[in-house]
Amino acid sequence: MNYSTLIDDYTLIFKSMFDLKELLASSPYEHIDLDDTEITLETISQVAQSTLDPLQRSSDLHPAELVNGIVQTPPGFENGYKTLAELGVMGMTAETKYGGSGFPYLVQNAVNEMINGACISLCLNPLLTQSQIEALQKFASEPIKELVIPKLVSGEWYGTMNITEAQAGSDVSGIQTEAKLGHDQKYRVTGQKIYISWGDADFVKNVCHLVLARVPDAPKGTKGLSLFLVLKYLEDAQGNFTKLNRLKVLSLEKKLGLHGSPTATMYFDSAEALLIGQPNKGLEAMFAMMNSARLGVGSQGLGVAEAAFQKAKAYALDRQQGSVNGQPQVIIQHPDIQRMLAIMRVQIFSARAICSACAYALDKAKMKNEKYWHDRAALLTPIAKFYGSETGVEVSNLAIRIFGGIGYIEATGMTQYLRDSLVTTIYEGTNGIQAHDLVIRKLGKNGEILFNILSEVEAFCQNTPELSNQYVEELERAGKEIAHTTQWIIKQVNSFEVKAGAQAYMRALATYLGSFYHLQRYHFFTANEKQMDLLEVCFSRFLPYVYPLCTEVKAGHSGLEEFVSTL
Amino acid sequence: MNYSTLIDDYTLIFKSMFDLKELLASSPYEHIDLDDTEITLETISQVAQSTLDPLQRSSDLHPAELVNGIVQTPPGFENGYKTLAELGVMGMTAETKYGGSGFPYLVQNAVNEMINGACISLCLNPLLTQSQIEALQKFASEPIKELVIPKLVSGEWYGTMNITEAQAGSDVSGIQTEAKLGHDQKYRVTGQKIYISWGDADFVKNVCHLVLARVPDAPKGTKGLSLFLVLKYLEDAQGNFTKLNRLKVLSLEKKLGLHGSPTATMYFDSAEALLIGQPNKGLEAMFAMMNSARLGVGSQGLGVAEAAFQKAKAYALDRQQGSVNGQPQVIIQHPDIQRMLAIMRVQIFSARAICSACAYALDKAKMKNEKYWHDRAALLTPIAKFYGSETGVEVSNLAIRIFGGIGYIEATGMTQYLRDSLVTTIYEGTNGIQAHDLVIRKLGKNGEILFNILSEVEAFCQNTPELSNQYVEELERAGKEIAHTTQWIIKQVNSFEVKAGAQAYMRALATYLGSFYHLQRYHFFTANEKQMDLLEVCFSRFLPYVYPLCTEVKAGHSGLEEFVSTL
Repeated sequence: MNYSTLIDDYTLIFKSMFDLKELLASSPYEHIDLDDTEITLETISQVAQSTLDPLQRSSDLHPAELVNGIVQTPPGFENGYKTLAELGVMGMTAETKYGGSGFPYLVQNAVNEMINGACISLCLNPLLTQSQIEALQKFASEPIKELVIPKLVSGEWYGTMNITEAQAGSDVSGIQTEAKLGHDQKYRVTGQKIYISWGDADFVKNVCHLVLARVPDAPKGTKGLSLFLVLKYLEDAQGNFTKLNRLKVLSLEKKLGLHGSPTATMYFDSAEALLIGQPNKGLEAMFAMMNSARLGVGSQGLGVAEAAFQKAKAYALDRQQGSVNGQPQVIIQHPDIQRMLAIMRVQIFSARAICSACAYALDKAKMKNEKYWHDRAALLTPIAKFYGSETGVEVSNLAIRIFGGIGYIEATGMTQYLRDSLVTTIYEGTNGIQAHDLVIRKLGKNGEILFNILSEVEAFCQNTPELSNQYVEELERAGKEIAHTTQWIIKQVNSFEVKAGAQAYMRALATYLGSFYHLQRYHFFTANEKQMDLLEVCFSRFLPYVYPLCTEVKAGHSGLEEFVSTL
Repeated sequence: MNYSTLIDDYTLIFKSMFDLKELLASSPYEHIDLDDTEITLETISQVAQSTLDPLQRSSDLHPAELVNGIVQTPPGFENGYKTLAELGVMGMTAETKYGGSGFPYLVQNAVNEMINGACISLCLNPLLTQSQIEALQKFASEPIKELVIPKLVSGEWYGTMNITEAQAGSDVSGIQTEAKLGHDQKYRVTGQKIYISWGDADFVKNVCHLVLARVPDAPKGTKGLSLFLVLKYLEDAQGNFTKLNRLKVLSLEKKLGLHGSPTATMYFDSAEALLIGQPNKGLEAMFAMMNSARLGVGSQGLGVAEAAFQKAKAYALDRQQGSVNGQPQVIIQHPDIQRMLAIMRVQIFSARAICSACAYALDKAKMKNEKYWHDRAALLTPIAKFYGSETGVEVSNLAIRIFGGIGYIEATGMTQYLRDSLVTTIYEGTNGIQAHDLVIRKLGKNGEILFNILSEVEAFCQNTPELSNQYVEELERAGKEIAHTTQWIIKQVNSFEVKAGAQAYMRALATYLGSFYHLQRYHFFTANEKQMDLLEVCFSRFLPYVYPLCTEVKAGHSGLEEFVSTL
């Protein structure tokens, strides 16, 4: 069976959980109406199924290759890319004055899940462009915006993110790429960047590289990083962008998965560059791109999970194996297969709601420009990235198990979901970094935003008398454990105590929030559509893990120092 | 850095946990002394590091291939295989009268971990031969034993297991391969078998296929399966085995990992065959091979985990990233990296002890031939297979995370551990099947063996006053939860209630047993060698998961039927 995008969950999410209609009622979204979003989702959903999905397997088998210095993309990618561009995917949330559609992030997030579930290696490309537009809108000068953003929106050009160097991975303070201002008042960038996703492609007219580099005499560390826009092609005398800049792709990586996406080592050799924002203030601007991409990466993991789930479900409903009382049996009749599919579905809906919660906070922040909503979006971003990507890997792993022996054979395509999704736990900041970001920065000194979210959950439980007492009690008990653990974190004076439990805390939060969203889903579905599955599974097989996770957090750093001393 | 086998853990295990000296004191092991085992382990350990380890990456890059009907194995495999044969690995536990060494399973288990950690795709081969010898010793006639076992022990011939057919995977009752008795009183086997590990190779003189097939008018289902030995080469007029039998390799699978191991589709076209045991009683004999292989597969996962852990540890100790107060920092200084390495180590030691517990029970059963020890070995076999293999996958996944971006690049070799180990969760019975086997068959009507094990843990805790009260209390509390959950399982009348929680129960047991073995390790190390790491990590980050796992078990089948109805 083929991938089919899941509009149903989003219909519920937009209607009852994160109110899309309310978002569309006021600035900056009042030019969009509900019909627009429905038509957009429906159209892109169709394209995801008909045009993108077939590229998934073929791009795995025909990876992007570097041939005589040119990146040859997999067959069909050019058509897939152009289709996405025509549908306005790159500029979905971009400002209308630059040609963007100005949709809410909530809608873009749904679109990103759908298209990445169909073909993640191609759709990483528009994700990067969407994120680059975010950064340029916030930090570039008006002339640069007017030059670049419309081209990015139309898909004629696309954007990349050049951060990592051999000795500067998770820690960007080691970046050595240099940018010098010439006598002609132009900057020129020199250095080598690695792991550059979509570093080049044969199907666009230009590539916009955002590059972190150091100007002469810049302070050491992260406070001396500046952001530059380096175009692959510079403007010629006729005003066309045809003049090759001094940059090249040195090589492409051979990776576990994501074969369709060229991961390049880029060399900039005094490449002409435009400064974005102020010198030495580049990291903040690059983080605008990075943060936007982080939510997108969460949706990527989620999309892959949904696709893997669908394949596993179809196989379980179809695969005959054995018989009961003479009746042939399909493997869905085995409780263990049912359990695996159910827990996959619980994780997927949890991740979907968490990513939507993050997108909704971004919309509120854009709408109200209030610190609270900016901080809330900032808090939810690492959670969305972490949990969406982990869901991709875990669901893909279970999907292979459902297939059994044949799942291990490459031709089935099931291994690809695992191979592809694993990168989402690593790129745009490893999940270890996400957890670190959450506990060290985003939680803040008093955990205000998080306690606010806990209060909202509590209020929903208290103000919805139709909810079953049993579930409300279990969720409230878990909420108390989360609150207690958060207080424990805030009180620590030694950051090592907190960092050792960061990933456990992250997962505990995602588990708790996911369970809350399941309770909401149950409530609104019961009222509207009589779907009552999953809640029982969520509360007996998912929520209880909050407790040992919190135990891990509160174990702090104990035992680890001693362990390291034995290595 | 290169793989180095872990003799230390086994020294402790043999000395203090599963008493090797006591085993060697009486029949059938009195011809072996402790020095023999030490020399054997040391020698094989050296070979694993020097000869086998280099084959791991090269065989991934140069997979086994079928060229003009001949299976060409990766470069170096012939030499690796012959070295293992010279060291007696194939016949380690085989009876001495057939040329075997007659070592305890406890020692063979350690050897299997070491060699599979070095190169799993090659060492699957001797694992199959070891297991085939088990089955032949138990079920073959004396002339067949005398013909075949010495050749298997010497490595001139090796053994395979032919069970699966396209419509008969986890459920073997669908097997359709036929065996007919000719006028010459010889059986001839016709049928196609898939996923045959090491179906053929270019470095041996003969291959011994054990094949499940049906004789004419056999009962339907599993009660109509007979076991046949099909030699690749039959005896010629001069008494040499040079006459090609009517069988061939149709194709090899392209798999996620284990590239060095040829996974064949075999076609038997009226191939001459020898009946092993009685007609229609073949499944029991094949299960003798399968069960032996299951423990071996647990050790494979464990071996891969150990190798991945070592690489991740070395990287974490070496990789500089960032600085603290001007001092360059290596990533091992990050608490999150420390935590990942520590939990990997906890899982590995747990799996190592569990596999050893299973091997020890097999030795006791062989020594005493008592139902209790046979049943205990039978109970521990699926746990060892399940937990060893899951540890392989989970530790490999964490090892990639420790490497970060470069871990996703194939050339690092880290992805291979994940790709290779995943198959151990699937072959020789998926882990779903292992869990099913545990709760439906091995636990028995009253859980006698399991309660016996729980009593042993309790007795150790009570009789060892030096143990810290805190750990004893935590282990006892978990033991009560396991006991309660086991009682719940035994009481169920509807098997669906039990099957839905089978994997959770399996993992809860492994977690509990692993924690007990850590308590023992701590106790004996403290007394002997002053190693005190890991216990704190185990009890705060591993043991607490027993509780939600047991909650999952006791959720039974609830919610799953409703969930399936929505698919």
